[in-house]
Amino acid sequence: MSEKVLNVGLLGFGTVGSSFAEVLAASGRMDIRITHVYNRGIERKKTHERAKFVPTGAVWTENVDDVLASPDIHLVVELMGGLDPIEGWLRTALNAGKHVVTANKQLIAYRGSDLFALAASKGVQLLYGAAVAGGVPVIPGMSQGLSGDKITRISGIVNGTCNFILSSMETGADYGEVLKKAQAAGYAEANPSADVDGFDARAKLCVLSRIALRAEINPDDVPAQTISHVSAIDFAYAKELGCTVRQVSRAQLDGEKVSARVGPMLVPTTSPIAWSHGTQNMVVTSGKFGGDVVFSGHGAGGHPTAVAVTSDVLAIAEGSAGVRLPAHKVQVSGDVLAPHYLRFIVKDSPGIVAAIAGALAKVGINIDSILQHRGHTGDRLPFVVTTEPCLSSTLEKAIADMTKMEFMVEPPQVMQILVVDDRDTD
Amino acid sequence: MSEKVLNVGLLGFGTVGSSFAEVLAASGRMDIRITHVYNRGIERKKTHERAKFVPTGAVWTENVDDVLASPDIHLVVELMGGLDPIEGWLRTALNAGKHVVTANKQLIAYRGSDLFALAASKGVQLLYGAAVAGGVPVIPGMSQGLSGDKITRISGIVNGTCNFILSSMETGADYGEVLKKAQAAGYAEANPSADVDGFDARAKLCVLSRIALRAEINPDDVPAQTISHVSAIDFAYAKELGCTVRQVSRAQLDGEKVSARVGPMLVPTTSPIAWSHGTQNMVVTSGKFGGDVVFSGHGAGGHPTAVAVTSDVLAIAEGSAGVRLPAHKVQVSGDVLAPHYLRFIVKDSPGIVAAIAGALAKVGINIDSILQHRGHTGDRLPFVVTTEPCLSSTLEKAIADMTKMEFMVEPPQVMQILVVDDRDTD
Repeated sequence: MSEKVLNVGLLGFGTVGSSFAEVLAASGRMDIRITHVYNRGIERKKTHERAKFVPTGAVWTENVDDVLASPDIHLVVELMGGLDPIEGWLRTALNAGKHVVTANKQLIAYRGSDLFALAASKGVQLLYGAAVAGGVPVIPGMSQGLSGDKITRISGIVNGTCNFILSSMETGADYGEVLKKAQAAGYAEANPSADVDGFDARAKLCVLSRIALRAEINPDDVPAQTISHVSAIDFAYAKELGCTVRQVSRAQLDGEKVSARVGPMLVPTTSPIAWSHGTQNMVVTSGKFGGDVVFSGHGAGGHPTAVAVTSDVLAIAEGSAGVRLPAHKVQVSGDVLAPHYLRFIVKDSPGIVAAIAGALAKVGINIDSILQHRGHTGDRLPFVVTTEPCLSSTLEKAIADMTKMEFMVEPPQVMQILVVDDRDTD
Repeated sequence: MSEKVLNVGLLGFGTVGSSFAEVLAASGRMDIRITHVYNRGIERKKTHERAKFVPTGAVWTENVDDVLASPDIHLVVELMGGLDPIEGWLRTALNAGKHVVTANKQLIAYRGSDLFALAASKGVQLLYGAAVAGGVPVIPGMSQGLSGDKITRISGIVNGTCNFILSSMETGADYGEVLKKAQAAGYAEANPSADVDGFDARAKLCVLSRIALRAEINPDDVPAQTISHVSAIDFAYAKELGCTVRQVSRAQLDGEKVSARVGPMLVPTTSPIAWSHGTQNMVVTSGKFGGDVVFSGHGAGGHPTAVAVTSDVLAIAEGSAGVRLPAHKVQVSGDVLAPHYLRFIVKDSPGIVAAIAGALAKVGINIDSILQHRGHTGDRLPFVVTTEPCLSSTLEKAIADMTKMEFMVEPPQVMQILVVDDRDTD
């Protein structure tokens, strides 16, 4: 490949696409050239401040077939996102013997296994290092550097928006306020559901699980809990428990089954997962032989994501095939054995603790601690119960009972408590 | 390669070699087979508890030519270390068209560029993911996942022994005591010089600099400062400054020059570099486009190192060539512009502060703070001066003057203070 030029067709010239043009240009590689740029409203795109990083003479087009059908293009870089129509476009590209580099987490999470098989059958590469954690090389790092281990668990902070919101709330801000601030700063969408309700994170978790656990998981099967019910008071209690609150994405292999979950969890401040602030991403893998490995950095933004895309393009230009790690479909359960945090808002009256303790005892769950801060009014009295390790499915039965109790002002906020247990290796 | 078997000749069946046999066996790959094991005292090695992970029928030999000259071996895994005779052996293997996987940091640091060129000329792979930070995939992560960035700085904790010693001293232990404990636990050698004086770390820094900064540096040109003069009192003052003390390896690209240094430094507790405890390793890369990326985990030990070795072997079996990043020889300077920490032990007498301040003023260095804790006797009075950013070469002139001052009981302990400045990307 070093003798000839690798011609690149770029789909999407938004923040990431235009940053890719800049980062690729900065690499100084004369043997890799963007020859086509597809986008809607292409005349406006040609005036983008980063359009200058696209080589003179490149074709700017609103007709995707100019890219997909061009016999001159060796590699298609897709930076648009979403399943439809992208899946069809990239199938066309792969079928035509073009390599594909994409940052599309949904596509890889939902259609990855089919697309990898198609790429392999055509003898081309499909790389997607930017699909999770942007500029943090967790995908190439795991594929190339941890393939020798038996990874049994993957935990991470893979949604920068939620991490921005929750790490801001740590210092006292209110959920609604911080969300508005995140929206104003461009970290959160007008409709923040994909982020705060965990749908973005669970697609990423499935992409990582395929590499780390060799497990094909359907994102729709992974329980996702919203962070929108986390309140300032949860941070106060979490602190008392030596923890903070983060949106954690977590998948664990137990024999042939995977338990997976995305949602707000209590994270001990001694855990690497608590280190992430702002929009940072962080992934921790736990391997049988290598123990815990941490990857951390800027998970989003045009430039960091463009670094991952450019690195994939360089790998293809160098003839470095990705390591193919065979994965197979596995059954997913959202059921986790863990200590849990239950926060109640109650109307003060006698017998509350007895009623809650009774509901837990009925399903055989032991209480670890009961915490109650002073200074709240009797109409909306918050208090917290932590449990010894229990199955989340068992706990849900007790929660269903409790939710009906007369003194309960709002449904209890239930969060898993992460336990730090890096195993002693060697 | 998937149709045929990749035959592996293993040089060295010590802790890492035998762990590699175990981890490779656990991968369940029937198409990768250890066919030869070379070691001295091979009869004893055959009774090793992990010898059972070597396939029956493998040749155990004390004659290295049985491995190097065997036409059946496709890949040589070298886990012995040192330059001589290993360099000659691996040249023989590469010349014979065999791939090589090695954990040998000295070899890659001192002879890497020649050996890479030889491997390329023979069309074979030379991978060395285990040479730095054992089970932490910083080498494959950077080569595959950050090749698109312009990395301008690399900082890290790459010597687990020093990190064990310094992170133990953080909680009050004395250097000598902790060193003994580390020796008893097998973390430190009877002669700890390679670790505590920074020679091990600077070889690793040079391996990383080639990938991250594309800079060929001779390890002998990198100034290395011993940690053996760090005392409990330095941790007390560091804490007052919001810092701790770590052995940091650091290389920074400024235009065509690299400044590099290994030694004890003051690290703000808010920096990821301060997160490492015990024998953990940690590498932080700073890129123009991707900002700071952190890799962390178990840097040593048989099993984590074997994960890196096995991952390299799997990559070769999958036909995944490494990304070749051209590097070139650069001039190295140990001179750094940074704030510095100076700790003095003096015999109390009038005019000490004036004399020290005078020596600094003479070379144009500004004092940032003067710290003195109570409770010490006048014969060995410790106190600390921190400077505003200054060139270490300039500071050394002032230190030379100060060392001659009559009241100075021992030479001043000088340490660079790291400044956290993750740049705002996108």
